[in-house]
Amino acid sequence: MSNDTNTTNAATVSTINPDLLKERQQATFDVERITHMLDGSVSNTDRRRYLEAIIQRDPTGIFDNGNNHYLHRTDRHVRSMAKGVRLIELCRKLGIGNDDDCSGEIIQSPDFQILLEAVADDIPLALHWVMFQPNIVSLCDEQQQAEWLPLCRDWRMIGCYAQTELGHGSNIRSLETTATFLKQADGGMPGGSWIIHSPTLTSTKFWPGTLGRTANHAMVIARLIDGNGIDRGIHNFLVPLRSMEDHTLLKGVTTGDIGPKIGYNNMDNGFAQFDQVVIPRRNMAMRFASVDEDGNYTHNNNNDATSKVAYITMMQVRAMIVNGASKALAMACTITLRYSAVRKQGFAEDGKTEVQILDYTQQQHRILPLLAASYAFFFTGRKLWKQLKDIERKLIAASGGASDNFNQQSSVSKEQVSDIHATSSALKSFTTMVAADGIEECRKACGGHGYLSCSGLPELFTSYLQSPTVEGDNHMLPQQVIRVLLKLVQAVQQQKQNTNLDTYKSCNSYALVPSLQAIIQGRSEQCAAINAQDLCQLSTLLLALRHRAARLLLAVSYQLERDMTETGCSLPTAWNHALVAMAKASKAYSQFLLLQDFMEGILHERQNQVIGRPEVDVLSDLAKLLALCWIEKDMGDFLVDGYMRPEHASWIELNVLQYLSIVRQNAVALVDARDFSDFRLKSVLGRYDGNVYPYIMEAAQKDPLNDVEPGPAYEVALKRLVRDGVGVYSGTASRL
Amino acid sequence: MSNDTNTTNAATVSTINPDLLKERQQATFDVERITHMLDGSVSNTDRRRYLEAIIQRDPTGIFDNGNNHYLHRTDRHVRSMAKGVRLIELCRKLGIGNDDDCSGEIIQSPDFQILLEAVADDIPLALHWVMFQPNIVSLCDEQQQAEWLPLCRDWRMIGCYAQTELGHGSNIRSLETTATFLKQADGGMPGGSWIIHSPTLTSTKFWPGTLGRTANHAMVIARLIDGNGIDRGIHNFLVPLRSMEDHTLLKGVTTGDIGPKIGYNNMDNGFAQFDQVVIPRRNMAMRFASVDEDGNYTHNNNNDATSKVAYITMMQVRAMIVNGASKALAMACTITLRYSAVRKQGFAEDGKTEVQILDYTQQQHRILPLLAASYAFFFTGRKLWKQLKDIERKLIAASGGASDNFNQQSSVSKEQVSDIHATSSALKSFTTMVAADGIEECRKACGGHGYLSCSGLPELFTSYLQSPTVEGDNHMLPQQVIRVLLKLVQAVQQQKQNTNLDTYKSCNSYALVPSLQAIIQGRSEQCAAINAQDLCQLSTLLLALRHRAARLLLAVSYQLERDMTETGCSLPTAWNHALVAMAKASKAYSQFLLLQDFMEGILHERQNQVIGRPEVDVLSDLAKLLALCWIEKDMGDFLVDGYMRPEHASWIELNVLQYLSIVRQNAVALVDARDFSDFRLKSVLGRYDGNVYPYIMEAAQKDPLNDVEPGPAYEVALKRLVRDGVGVYSGTASRL
Repeated sequence: MSNDTNTTNAATVSTINPDLLKERQQATFDVERITHMLDGSVSNTDRRRYLEAIIQRDPTGIFDNGNNHYLHRTDRHVRSMAKGVRLIELCRKLGIGNDDDCSGEIIQSPDFQILLEAVADDIPLALHWVMFQPNIVSLCDEQQQAEWLPLCRDWRMIGCYAQTELGHGSNIRSLETTATFLKQADGGMPGGSWIIHSPTLTSTKFWPGTLGRTANHAMVIARLIDGNGIDRGIHNFLVPLRSMEDHTLLKGVTTGDIGPKIGYNNMDNGFAQFDQVVIPRRNMAMRFASVDEDGNYTHNNNNDATSKVAYITMMQVRAMIVNGASKALAMACTITLRYSAVRKQGFAEDGKTEVQILDYTQQQHRILPLLAASYAFFFTGRKLWKQLKDIERKLIAASGGASDNFNQQSSVSKEQVSDIHATSSALKSFTTMVAADGIEECRKACGGHGYLSCSGLPELFTSYLQSPTVEGDNHMLPQQVIRVLLKLVQAVQQQKQNTNLDTYKSCNSYALVPSLQAIIQGRSEQCAAINAQDLCQLSTLLLALRHRAARLLLAVSYQLERDMTETGCSLPTAWNHALVAMAKASKAYSQFLLLQDFMEGILHERQNQVIGRPEVDVLSDLAKLLALCWIEKDMGDFLVDGYMRPEHASWIELNVLQYLSIVRQNAVALVDARDFSDFRLKSVLGRYDGNVYPYIMEAAQKDPLNDVEPGPAYEVALKRLVRDGVGVYSGTASRL
Repeated sequence: MSNDTNTTNAATVSTINPDLLKERQQATFDVERITHMLDGSVSNTDRRRYLEAIIQRDPTGIFDNGNNHYLHRTDRHVRSMAKGVRLIELCRKLGIGNDDDCSGEIIQSPDFQILLEAVADDIPLALHWVMFQPNIVSLCDEQQQAEWLPLCRDWRMIGCYAQTELGHGSNIRSLETTATFLKQADGGMPGGSWIIHSPTLTSTKFWPGTLGRTANHAMVIARLIDGNGIDRGIHNFLVPLRSMEDHTLLKGVTTGDIGPKIGYNNMDNGFAQFDQVVIPRRNMAMRFASVDEDGNYTHNNNNDATSKVAYITMMQVRAMIVNGASKALAMACTITLRYSAVRKQGFAEDGKTEVQILDYTQQQHRILPLLAASYAFFFTGRKLWKQLKDIERKLIAASGGASDNFNQQSSVSKEQVSDIHATSSALKSFTTMVAADGIEECRKACGGHGYLSCSGLPELFTSYLQSPTVEGDNHMLPQQVIRVLLKLVQAVQQQKQNTNLDTYKSCNSYALVPSLQAIIQGRSEQCAAINAQDLCQLSTLLLALRHRAARLLLAVSYQLERDMTETGCSLPTAWNHALVAMAKASKAYSQFLLLQDFMEGILHERQNQVIGRPEVDVLSDLAKLLALCWIEKDMGDFLVDGYMRPEHASWIELNVLQYLSIVRQNAVALVDARDFSDFRLKSVLGRYDGNVYPYIMEAAQKDPLNDVEPGPAYEVALKRLVRDGVGVYSGTASRL
């Protein structure tokens, strides 16, 4: 693809594909207003476009992605490292991360996020900012931060976060790497040391990003064996890996890259083995626990406080993941919807005019609900982020500092922390699943050309595929969701005996209570819609999703109880039997939250006059379509207990078709509103100007296979057939 | 991965992972008997293993796949070409394709199929055998075959099939490439010529495999403009692309590779543009139509006969696709189930023993239905192949030669040809969808390590992803299915007026008739199961799937009628509105056929004593699980018209859990029975011996990123941070 020098989609009208032009002209709303809404404000949009232009017009040219697909993995890695270094230089010039106080919170800087996304390529070095520095801020004491954060800021220390091991993924309880205390008297350093060691092959640190080739320090998660030989469980240790002078490996450390992956291949995900590596005692992260010179272990806060902080950190990443699901899915929709407007197949009733793919209801049914989901995820991701920041702020205010036990003083209830954990777990699992499957559906919906790397969809998809697995596997998370929600169920069930439901009032899951109460009390809820039109009211659809979520949650609860009382199962066995039902309940809860947040979000933007009536209408149409399609897909969930009747099912189907046609009119404008520049989309199919075919050909011709005639395989292989005739049948061969 | 020299899974018991050993010991059936069933006979198994050993032990070592993932695409392509040439040499030695009569039907040779699969890598040259030669056999007249097939056999002519164009995928009606007749008198060759021409950018031939760098001839599909200037629609023309002497491009031809793709990158899918390329008149494929020296066009058979042959050819490929879906899915299941037996996470009730991933019901629910589907696809693929061969045989017998009009004489009814078209379309669409999604589900179910290329799953997945799109896009095919099935509906509806239902008796879709009749006549069918146990009888489940398929098919019919009569839509508009419903009906029909074929297949193998009671039991368990999971997933379809009641829904859920646990016991043995050697699986996670972790490490260490210390990016990029300090904060930068 050509290295388009426009940040914004500034193609002139005359060069734009006429079908795309028509799509844009028929939009019923102001595209820019939605763009401003997504960016947060008009000035945010301006700032984003300004920063995107800086990347795109960078005089070094290093950010050109035009050759990405033709490079060997090694060369792509090297190039992405060069991009990273240039990005750091630009950040210095732009004043991003130039903290005099070294708070290290570059990850919170909107400018930084914008630049990182503007690069439109995976930058391994970014993990230093995104994971390593925040970890020091969260888990190290003030003195440690004062020492290490300036080194981080100045890129003397280049760090990674080393948790997972070859034989142990998310199950941190099983981690095998040890950090054993060694007193000075026993041969340790002055003040004592830790011996970091990998006792087995399976304890090899495996997967951490940049661990392989890039980082010179790792925050290693290891079992702490204190000076008294007591295993204190897992803690964090800052382990130097490589020289800060010349990047050579330090004694006792073996690292390397873990090899090619389905995607995300810029990144040197790494392995590391530690052979009795000695580090100073004070390299243990000591904010919440410490070990003195004699090797005595102390909690600086109770465990609950520690885990609360860990929760919040983890969940902030999850809010970013939900927002990332929105963006990735929106990118895929942008490519597919624009191409579906340009691409034609089959003939209209006149037998001559070819039909835009976008006009086929089947294509609409595949893609438009995904477009709607991408908007839903935006509102929910933003709300989740705000909630987490709010909780964090309250926790910090209440704690009055790192060394207090803030648990009892906080205005944040235990239930609220658990609830946000459940909410973020459910949403992480559901949104990344929808985005991963959705991007692939978009790719398939581009037909054969979606299989080409130059369509942009293969790499968007395969790199995105890490998301369903990292930060809590999507299939493990529902258990955590249900574990929390079952407590709410219990509280509702016991409501008459006490008043403990009040503590749930600031919880997201509290919204389920009316349905939970109704079902528990045997008041059967039923869908009140009396005709098809009734059944596309957002409030009606939300009630349906709420009822289903509550019912499925109760079903898990009943199943567990029944299994244990009737068949005498132990809890773990009953729990295992209920895993499938838990996954269903967690998904149902997510869909309820997402529709609720979507509705609230639209209202909020309208009240703040960020958007007007036309934008409210088009966003509401999206929300309706989304809910209708979700219900259509799981119709059995709504029929089985009589919440809906068969006529509701037909109305749902009718309404789906109706809203597909309504949303279709604005489909291209709605992806335009995401304002992904061609530079960011990196797709010949998704170009703003719709000039698809010349750029497919351009991309084809760039393949190195075309560099020589008659092709690189001729001399090595094909010549044996063509010249030497090894394929000629002599008529004499006998059957072996 | 090491280049294992065993063809069969001959690891000794002592080296096998104890958990895998346990899995194998608890199997309730004879694994080898299932293997023989899959191969067709004991001697087929022996022959397969013998041929696989030839590939694996080939003294040239060219077939080693151990470095595939580390090579640049160009190098992989070159290597795969070398493999292809070696494979041709071996075929010569083995007597494969050594036809004295040049029938060219190497694709029908089981030995050839085995060798091709044994290579366990995509071989571009194979398309010559698989698509090009059969095309000459089908569409060229005897004289043409006599001239060209020996050249094909001897690899003098290396051919590809060039249909799709840059702007036109499966929509052959829109193809733009022209073949214009030129009389000798007007400057043509003696006897007349064709001028092959690409009039536009979008007419560029695009996608054909080997067109880019490998083929020296292409069977080009182009619009025939005869000597009278009349457009006769699309026909096939043999166009020389490159010199048969030195592979240089011929005048007027431009070709190249189309660039990197999400998978299948060994293949040089190509583009070609023709600039007034002149070829002899007799290079038009003349079996079914011809043009004389004066440019007069004649049909040699009526169009119907031509299209029947095209149908059968296309559908044979589809039977192979269904069988391919079975194999690809079985490979993914093999990897994931073996790894799920070895991999542990979480603790058992004793708090000490770690739990095998395979014991989690959630994991079982993800993978075991896919295992069942892989077996179902085997039986259906085999049946479809037999049916097609049977029809082909009858058509050929009836035609008495190429030049007769066999349509009227054939014992194959028009309905039967349409029916097999509908059946194969539905099954192609459904099975490749299940396989593609299923392989990815298997990959995700391996957790993080499934993201590694060395797991084997990424390439299995991304290369498989062509299948949902090629040979009829999965989302286009349902229309073809429904178009045919609606005629059956009509016949049933008109049954009293005439007897035309008899002509459907040898059709697959005839099995739907009892349910169609019942629904049309208003006799409501209902599930007869009175308890959970009742509801896991295969006959009961099959009736449910039949009813649902018939109901959804009728729903399409009613919707079309209603749209046209009530709202006055034209048929194309009504048709477009019904596309979503058609996709549902087509899927439902596939599921019905698959369960029916599965049941018939088990019975058949039992009657022929290929398998015994234990094997019948375990296969029946798989069939039950599959049907239960399908119904569970689409529960709404069975509830909405009262075919099932809410208690049925609970029984289905209970039965699913029960059959997961039953099938789980034999899960590893059932994938062992597919007898994929480690050489073919190419997966460190799916190894027969379960020795997973050392081989993951071995694969990691082989990455070229690890060839140098401190890594290839150091000198080029990282040094600027580490040595030059470009990341150091000077404290003076101003905010831009």
